[in-house]
Amino acid sequence: MIRNLASAAMSSKITGRRIAAILVLGAAILLVPAAAQAQDETAFVLNTFSFLIWGVLVMWMCAGFTMLESGSVRSKNASMICLKNIGLYSIAGIAYYVLGYNLMYVDVSGFIGSFQFFYGPSAAETALIGGDAAQTAAVTENGYSVMSDWFFQMVFVATTASIVSGALAERVRLWSFFAFTAVLTAVIYPVVGAWTWGEGWLYARGFSDFAGSTIVHSTGGWAALAGILVVGPRWGKFQRDGSVKSTPPSNIPAVTLGVFILWMGWFAFNGGSVLELASAGAAVNMSNVIVNTNLAAAAGVLTALLVSRPILGRLDLFAGLNGAIAGLVSITAGPDIGSGGRAMLVGAVGAVICTAGLRFLESRRLDDVVGAVPAHLFAGAWGTMAVCFGGDYDWFVQLTGVAAVGAFAFSVSWLVWKGLDRLMGVRVGRNVEEIGQDATELGLDAYPEFVLMVDPDSGDDYRDED
Amino acid sequence: MIRNLASAAMSSKITGRRIAAILVLGAAILLVPAAAQAQDETAFVLNTFSFLIWGVLVMWMCAGFTMLESGSVRSKNASMICLKNIGLYSIAGIAYYVLGYNLMYVDVSGFIGSFQFFYGPSAAETALIGGDAAQTAAVTENGYSVMSDWFFQMVFVATTASIVSGALAERVRLWSFFAFTAVLTAVIYPVVGAWTWGEGWLYARGFSDFAGSTIVHSTGGWAALAGILVVGPRWGKFQRDGSVKSTPPSNIPAVTLGVFILWMGWFAFNGGSVLELASAGAAVNMSNVIVNTNLAAAAGVLTALLVSRPILGRLDLFAGLNGAIAGLVSITAGPDIGSGGRAMLVGAVGAVICTAGLRFLESRRLDDVVGAVPAHLFAGAWGTMAVCFGGDYDWFVQLTGVAAVGAFAFSVSWLVWKGLDRLMGVRVGRNVEEIGQDATELGLDAYPEFVLMVDPDSGDDYRDED
Amino acid sequence: MIRNLASAAMSSKITGRRIAAILVLGAAILLVPAAAQAQDETAFVLNTFSFLIWGVLVMWMCAGFTMLESGSVRSKNASMICLKNIGLYSIAGIAYYVLGYNLMYVDVSGFIGSFQFFYGPSAAETALIGGDAAQTAAVTENGYSVMSDWFFQMVFVATTASIVSGALAERVRLWSFFAFTAVLTAVIYPVVGAWTWGEGWLYARGFSDFAGSTIVHSTGGWAALAGILVVGPRWGKFQRDGSVKSTPPSNIPAVTLGVFILWMGWFAFNGGSVLELASAGAAVNMSNVIVNTNLAAAAGVLTALLVSRPILGRLDLFAGLNGAIAGLVSITAGPDIGSGGRAMLVGAVGAVICTAGLRFLESRRLDDVVGAVPAHLFAGAWGTMAVCFGGDYDWFVQLTGVAAVGAFAFSVSWLVWKGLDRLMGVRVGRNVEEIGQDATELGLDAYPEFVLMVDPDSGDDYRDED
Repeated sequence: MIRNLASAAMSSKITGRRIAAILVLGAAILLVPAAAQAQDETAFVLNTFSFLIWGVLVMWMCAGFTMLESGSVRSKNASMICLKNIGLYSIAGIAYYVLGYNLMYVDVSGFIGSFQFFYGPSAAETALIGGDAAQTAAVTENGYSVMSDWFFQMVFVATTASIVSGALAERVRLWSFFAFTAVLTAVIYPVVGAWTWGEGWLYARGFSDFAGSTIVHSTGGWAALAGILVVGPRWGKFQRDGSVKSTPPSNIPAVTLGVFILWMGWFAFNGGSVLELASAGAAVNMSNVIVNTNLAAAAGVLTALLVSRPILGRLDLFAGLNGAIAGLVSITAGPDIGSGGRAMLVGAVGAVICTAGLRFLESRRLDDVVGAVPAHLFAGAWGTMAVCFGGDYDWFVQLTGVAAVGAFAFSVSWLVWKGLDRLMGVRVGRNVEEIGQDATELGLDAYPEFVLMVDPDSGDDYRDED
Repeated sequence: MIRNLASAAMSSKITGRRIAAILVLGAAILLVPAAAQAQDETAFVLNTFSFLIWGVLVMWMCAGFTMLESGSVRSKNASMICLKNIGLYSIAGIAYYVLGYNLMYVDVSGFIGSFQFFYGPSAAETALIGGDAAQTAAVTENGYSVMSDWFFQMVFVATTASIVSGALAERVRLWSFFAFTAVLTAVIYPVVGAWTWGEGWLYARGFSDFAGSTIVHSTGGWAALAGILVVGPRWGKFQRDGSVKSTPPSNIPAVTLGVFILWMGWFAFNGGSVLELASAGAAVNMSNVIVNTNLAAAAGVLTALLVSRPILGRLDLFAGLNGAIAGLVSITAGPDIGSGGRAMLVGAVGAVICTAGLRFLESRRLDDVVGAVPAHLFAGAWGTMAVCFGGDYDWFVQLTGVAAVGAFAFSVSWLVWKGLDRLMGVRVGRNVEEIGQDATELGLDAYPEFVLMVDPDSGDDYRDED
Repeated sequence: MIRNLASAAMSSKITGRRIAAILVLGAAILLVPAAAQAQDETAFVLNTFSFLIWGVLVMWMCAGFTMLESGSVRSKNASMICLKNIGLYSIAGIAYYVLGYNLMYVDVSGFIGSFQFFYGPSAAETALIGGDAAQTAAVTENGYSVMSDWFFQMVFVATTASIVSGALAERVRLWSFFAFTAVLTAVIYPVVGAWTWGEGWLYARGFSDFAGSTIVHSTGGWAALAGILVVGPRWGKFQRDGSVKSTPPSNIPAVTLGVFILWMGWFAFNGGSVLELASAGAAVNMSNVIVNTNLAAAAGVLTALLVSRPILGRLDLFAGLNGAIAGLVSITAGPDIGSGGRAMLVGAVGAVICTAGLRFLESRRLDDVVGAVPAHLFAGAWGTMAVCFGGDYDWFVQLTGVAAVGAFAFSVSWLVWKGLDRLMGVRVGRNVEEIGQDATELGLDAYPEFVLMVDPDSGDDYRDED
C-alpha cells in the first residue's frame, strides 16, 4: 500500500520547490519499510538464536542422564551405561534426521506426518546463504531458521530416549537397546508428537502440554515401563522371601552432578519451548517459565526429602535428587501458568508422587534402576493434568491425551521389545549380569584400577534361583 | 510531540494533489514511532535474554561448588555435601522468592526493603502475556522483564550460600545448616544487598562493587567464618602438639571440574552484571568484563602455583585451583575497570592473599575445609579495595563498605549459628564424625563399592581427646 | 545524502500551511537515520553477544579435555593431568593476550602479524564506555566489540594446547610442558593463524578451513606428534617381544563426560565461527552449521563402534568416544557445506580414519595416551581435504595448506621440544613414572582414599630394561 501511495505522489504534478520535499519523502518511504524489514530480520535472528542456544543446553541434558545413570548403576555396568547413552544420542539424532521429524511435523494428517526421508533448509534459505539477498524476506517470514527448529526438536527426542536407558540398566542387551532406540526416535515419539505439537488430532481437541510432560517424559516413561516388563528385573533384585535387595548407587557425586546438569538443561527445555524470543510478550513468558521451572524443582527437592522418611523409612538423598527431576517433569506441561506459588505446589505434589511411586514399583516387583518411571511417567501424567489448576484447560481432554499417549507408547513399545526379544534377545545372560556388562561385553571396566567390593548377596541369590 | 505535529498537518487546508504526499507522510509518521517502539522492544528482549542466559550459567556454579566440595571432603562425607548443596540451592531459591528479594530491592529505605511476601511479574506484563498487546510500551519501558532480573539475582544469593557449605563440611549438622541457609538467603544477604545494589545507605555514599566481591563473596565468607568459630574444627584436625593433620581431597578430578565450572560460570556472574546488553556501550562493557575476568583467573592460577612453594612448602595443585577462585573473586568488584594488565595484577595479588590466607587460617586453628574464607572473604575484600587502583572510587568509602558488611554479616551470622546451636545443635556427634555423615546420617555412602583406606590418624587422635 | 536534501527543503521558500508538513518531514528525517543507526547498534550487540556466549562454551571444552584426559590416564597421574590442563588454559590466555593475538591478526604481512605486546579495546570503544555517546557509530561500524572477538579467538588457542597435554600424559615434565604451551600459544599457533584467518599467504591462495580442522586441530596434533617423538613412549608401553601393554582408562564415566562436554562445546566452536549473527543469512548459516556438526559427530560414534571390531578386534567404547571427536574434527573445516547427509559421511570417514589411526600409531610404537593424533591430526587433515567434496574449493590449495601447516607446526614444535629437552629435560625420571607424577611431583594423589590395584606388568618390564 505504501508503495502505491508513493507512485501516486510521484505522478502528481510537482513544482520546483516541492521537489526537495518529495525527494525527502521518497527517502523516508524507502527507509521506513527497510526499517520494518530489518526489524523482521532481527526477530528472525533472535528466534533462531534462542532455538540454538537453548537447544545446545538441552543436548547437555544427555550428559546429565549419563552422569545420573553411570552413578546409579553398580560399577560393573558403568562403562556400558556410558556407551548406551552416547550411542542413543547418536542414534536419536540420525533417526530423527532421516525420518522422525518428517513423521512428526511435515503435513500431519491428524495421526501422522509424511513418510519421507531426510530434512533440510528451505529453498529460500539455501538461496540466501548462496548469495541471493533478495530471499531475505522469504526467509525471515518463517520467523526462525528451519534447521534451528529441527535442532531444538531433535534434542527433545534424545531426552525421551535417555529416559529408557536408565530404567533398563544393568541387564538389557546393547544392540537390542540401540534397535529399540531407533524405533522410538524414528517412529514412536514422532507419532505422539504428530498428534500434539504436529497439530494432529489431540491438538485439535485442545490438548495442552507446553514442553512435554506427557509428550516427552511420559512417552519415555511408558517405553521404559514396557521394557521393564519384557526384560524383567535384575537377578536377585527381588528375593523369594519378598524382600528387595538394595542396589545402592555406586557414585553419588556423579548422580548429583547429573541432576544439576538436568536442572540446568531444563531451563532451556522449558524456556526454549516458548518457541519465540523476539517480542516483549515472548521474553516475559520465557522469564516466567524459567522462574517457575526453578521453583518447582526446588520445591520438589525439599518435599521429597521431607516425605522420604515417612514413605521410604529414612532421609533419602536419592529420593531428594529424584524429587528435583519429578518437580521439573511436573511443571513442564505448564510452566507458563500462574505464579511461583502454583509452580512450587505442582513440583511438591510431583515429588510426593515420585517418592511414593518408587515404593509402589518395588512393591509390584518392577525393577527400575534409576526411578525413571516414577519421575518421568507418574510425575509427567500429574503435570499434564495439573494444567487444569490455574490454566484454562479441559481436564477430560488432558486425560484423553495422557491415556491415548500412554496406550500408544506403551503398547507399541511392548510389541517392539517383544519382537526384539524374539529376534535377537533383549536380555544378557545370567553370567554377564553377574560379572557385569563392562567386563563381559566391553572388556573395559569403568574403574579398572580401583579395588571394588564383592557383591555378597548376588552369589547366594543366584544359587537360590538355580 | 510528533503526534501533535501530525494533527496540525492534517487540519491544514490541503489541495487534491497534496493528498497523496500527506498520506505518505502519515504512513511515515505512524511507522517511524512504530520503528522506535520496535527498537525498545528489541532492547527489552535482549536485556531479558541476557539475564536469563547468564543466570542459567550462574546457577551452574552451584554444580561447580558441589563438585569442588564433594571432591575436597573425605569420601565418608561426600554424599552429605552433595545433599547440602542441592538442598541449599533449593532453599535459597524459595527463601529469596518468599522474602529475600523484597527485603533487598522493594522500596529500600536506606537499610532494608519491604517486609512483604512473594514476588511476581508486573501487572502490565501479566496483561501483555494475557493478550493485551497495548501493554507493550508499559512493559518494555522497564528495560527487561521483571522475573528475568529476579532470576539473575536469585542465582547470586545461591552463590553466597554455596560458600558456607564447603567451609563447614564434614561436621555441621544437616538441618542446622539448612536453617542457617534459610536465614542467610532470606535476610542476611538481602540486607547487605539493600544497602548496596538496593540503593541503600552504602550506595548513597558511593560504594562500588560491580558484581559482588564484597556483597556476594565476602558476605558468604563472613557467614562461613562465623560458622567455623561456632561449629569448631573437625576432630583431630589440630593436634595437641600444634601439628595440623592433613586431610587431602578425596577426588582431585572432581575438584578440578568444579573449578572449571566456576570459572565458566563467572563469565556469566560478571558479564551478566553489566545488567544490560542492548546498547553498543553495554556490549563493549560486557566484552571487556569477560576478558578481564578470564585474565584475572589465569593470573591467579599461575601466581598461586608459583607462590605455593615458598608459602606452603610445595607446588600445590589445590592452592593453584584456589588461585583461580581467588583471582575471580578479586576481579569481581571491578572487572569493568581498566586494561587486562590491571586485571592480571588484581588476580595475582588476590591469589597471593588467598594462598597466604590458607596458611594463616591453619595457624589460627580455624578449620576451613575448602579454603572458602581465604578465597572468598580475603580475596573479596582485596578486590573491593582494588577498585581504587584504576577506578575513580574513594578508598575510605570502599573500606566503610567492606567493614560494615563484615560487621553485619559476621555478627548476625554468629548470633544465628549460636542460636541454632542452642536450639538444635550445629555439630554432629563425634561418632558420626568418625564414621562419616554419609553412613550415619544418610545411610548412603558416596562410593559404596570402592574399597577405601582406613584413616589411620583419626582413631588415635580421638582417644587422645577422651 | 539525506541530510543535504533536508537542507535543500529547509532553504526553499515555504508557505505557512506547509510549515507543519515540513516539520513532520524533519522529524521523519531525523528519526529514520536514527532507526538505521539503532539497527546497526542492534547488529553490533547481537554479533558481540554471539562471540561471548559461544566463546564461553568453547572455554568449557577445556573442562572437557580435562575430564577426558584425567579419566584416560592411570590414577597415579590424574592429579597431574588436571594441573596441566588448568595451567595450560591459564598460560594460553595470558600468552595470547601478551603476544599471540597481535602476531595472528594485527597487520599481517603474509606470514606474520605485528610483534607488539598486549591488546585492548579500540579508542572509540573506550571513549564510548567512558561516556562519549557520539562514538556509537564509530564503535558499531566494526560490527562487533573488539574484545569479544579476542575472547572467541583466545578460547580457540586454548583448544590447540589442550590437544597436546593428553597425548603426552603420564611422562612429560610439568614445567617443560608449560614452557612448550607458552611457545605454542604465543607463537606457533598464531603464525599458522596469520597465514589463514589472519588473511596471510594461504588465505590469499584460497585456502579454506571454516573453524579450524587444520588450523586448530591439526596444529595441536602436529605439536603433540613432535612431543611424542621427542619425549618417547611410556616405559613398558611397548614390550621387547613387540606386544603392546594395555593401559586402560582409569575412569570411563569421566572420559564420557569429557566427550559430552566437547560435543556440546563444538556447537559453539563451529557455530560461533560464522563470526556473525545479526543477519538472516548468518542465522541460517549458524543453524545449518550446528546441525551438520551434530550429525557428523553422531555418525562418527556409530561408525567407530561398528569398525572397532574389525580394526581393533572388539567393540570398543574408547574408539566410539574418539569417533565422536573425530567426526567433530572432520566436519570442522566445512560444517557450512551441503546437507546433513554429507556431514554424516564426512564424520563417518573421519571416524574410520581415527580408529585405524589408533592402531597405526601403536604399530609405529608411538605412544599417544588419548589418541589425540588420530582424532585431531588425521581427522583434521581429512576434514580439510573433504571441503572439496561438496564445496567449491581447490584440492591442491587445500593440500598445500595441510602440508604447509604440518611442516611448520611439526618442525617448530620438534625444535622447541628438543630445545626444552636440552635446557630442562622434557621427561620425568623412571622412578617418577613408575610411582606416578601425582605422588612424586605433586604429593597429592587424585584419589587418595581409594585402594588401587598394583600395576602388575610395570615392575617386570622395568626390570627387563635395566
